[in-house]
Amino acid sequence: MRIGILGYGNLGRGVECAVKQNPDMELVAVFTRRNPETVQILTPGVPVLSINEAEKMQDQIDVLILCGGSATDLPVQTPAFAKYFNVVDSFDTHAKIPEHFAAVDTAAKAAGKIGIISVGWDPGMFSLNRMYANAILPDGCDYTFWGKGVSQGHSDAVRRIAGVKDARQYTIPVPEALEAVRNGQNPVLSTRQKHTRECFVVAEEGADLARIENEIKTMPNYFSDYDTTVHFISEEEMKQNHSGIPHGGMVIRSGKTGTQGENQHIIEYSLKLDSNPEFTASVIVAYARAAFRMNQEGQTGCKTVFDVPPAYLSAASGEELRKNLL
Amino acid sequence: MRIGILGYGNLGRGVECAVKQNPDMELVAVFTRRNPETVQILTPGVPVLSINEAEKMQDQIDVLILCGGSATDLPVQTPAFAKYFNVVDSFDTHAKIPEHFAAVDTAAKAAGKIGIISVGWDPGMFSLNRMYANAILPDGCDYTFWGKGVSQGHSDAVRRIAGVKDARQYTIPVPEALEAVRNGQNPVLSTRQKHTRECFVVAEEGADLARIENEIKTMPNYFSDYDTTVHFISEEEMKQNHSGIPHGGMVIRSGKTGTQGENQHIIEYSLKLDSNPEFTASVIVAYARAAFRMNQEGQTGCKTVFDVPPAYLSAASGEELRKNLL
Repeated sequence: MRIGILGYGNLGRGVECAVKQNPDMELVAVFTRRNPETVQILTPGVPVLSINEAEKMQDQIDVLILCGGSATDLPVQTPAFAKYFNVVDSFDTHAKIPEHFAAVDTAAKAAGKIGIISVGWDPGMFSLNRMYANAILPDGCDYTFWGKGVSQGHSDAVRRIAGVKDARQYTIPVPEALEAVRNGQNPVLSTRQKHTRECFVVAEEGADLARIENEIKTMPNYFSDYDTTVHFISEEEMKQNHSGIPHGGMVIRSGKTGTQGENQHIIEYSLKLDSNPEFTASVIVAYARAAFRMNQEGQTGCKTVFDVPPAYLSAASGEELRKNLL
Repeated sequence: MRIGILGYGNLGRGVECAVKQNPDMELVAVFTRRNPETVQILTPGVPVLSINEAEKMQDQIDVLILCGGSATDLPVQTPAFAKYFNVVDSFDTHAKIPEHFAAVDTAAKAAGKIGIISVGWDPGMFSLNRMYANAILPDGCDYTFWGKGVSQGHSDAVRRIAGVKDARQYTIPVPEALEAVRNGQNPVLSTRQKHTRECFVVAEEGADLARIENEIKTMPNYFSDYDTTVHFISEEEMKQNHSGIPHGGMVIRSGKTGTQGENQHIIEYSLKLDSNPEFTASVIVAYARAAFRMNQEGQTGCKTVFDVPPAYLSAASGEELRKNLL
């Protein structure tokens, strides 16, 4: 299976690493909007090319993995490149998934290609687990917790405050809330009761720390609905203790069965990730395999994790899967 | 969707309860090998019929759910009834799945029906989670823990010992082993290091308790490879504290990504079930929906959880799933 990567940031590098772990895949090219000569990749012998070269390479690439951002890149790129390639993206603006799906579906169907959108862990594996658990236990409650992990969006928001040189924001599930959910108490939880936010901030010399802390804690949408802790640290400490991009979380459904709903069941799916982009990339690469296979069988159009038979993600045959994993 | 149940024990009753929770399904008949007049079911107006009546009802049932045992019932029944119906079973003899698959596949293909086998939680949801996690993290280690829960097979084995009136056996994961796996230490664990076994025994009056305890602890295959605790209790205590059939467990994969495998990820799927048969039944009923849909699309033959697109399990439409759960 011949893979192309479009966009070479943290996610693109993660895809490059993941492709190396899958012997049935080969990286053919990395496409970038930057000057290709300035982009250094990890795989020897693989060309870095301008994004404008991509469509010429239709016959050399089985699946093009789109590693741009959801705000402005993917809404344009995924439908555009679905005209030439089977594509997979990690579009994660939940509210806009229906319109993104429609745009990719139209383009992919017209071209006879498959486009799998919103692949990763949320949306992605978390969605899948919400769906399976809902289908199994129709009478129940859903809970999703995120963290402990770095939120890029919240870290960026703190960095935009005057006097802030660098910042890292961790989202942390509230242990008592998690405990109550795991015990099947079906609590009704406010935003504040589910997660806390912890910020590590490197301030510019002489900056007013009290003002920065106040601006963070009162920032609407991002922080004002949460209990937030702010720590001012040195650049060295930031570099030493907060350079990773860990994340994770839990999807939990508690549901009832029986003649009177007398029996309770808890289904939990949890992730503890050292590297958010590398794990997301690993999920995407498995779905790239599925995109290729589904298209080889003649399927076209836009798909999500809900539509893909699990076996298509695996390099093993049906016989091997039944023998070893069933 | 019109559902038939074949075999009315704990699992059959669980299926009956699960069908009630799904408004798109209707129970049409329960088939039994016993004298139908002696079988009392929960749903008013639904007939209990002899197993010999089943094949005459081909046109009135969309999916027949087989609730017999894996040892002798399902190897015969699933291929036999796949000649007349879409069928779902919970065949759980892992080692014999390949031959069961082949027998059901032949019968179902010849009849133009779908047979989904080995549905439940292990095999079933645990298998699915092993498979997804393996596809996402090819470089990693798998762990499955069972419990805390009642093992019917081990309880039966204890009941067969002379002087034992009743017995209940709980399988319990060793907390230290679970902790090491969750921390990504990838321990190599012996059978004894993974699970302990706890037995509650009602002895006959005057029975030699020391001999019973010794027979349990040294029983090959069942107990000799484990640290086992035996408690002798009264019939009242058995009835009061051990009448449920709880179970559960965890499937955990830890895997590495990055240029040098420098980042570690832990994927965990866990179940905590008040009623093993009712949860198994709930999974089966969701797959009955999938069997019907796949067959309506013209698919035939034997399938497992690996082959079924997740969305087919849900009563919700693709649009609803993308909007609400993705």
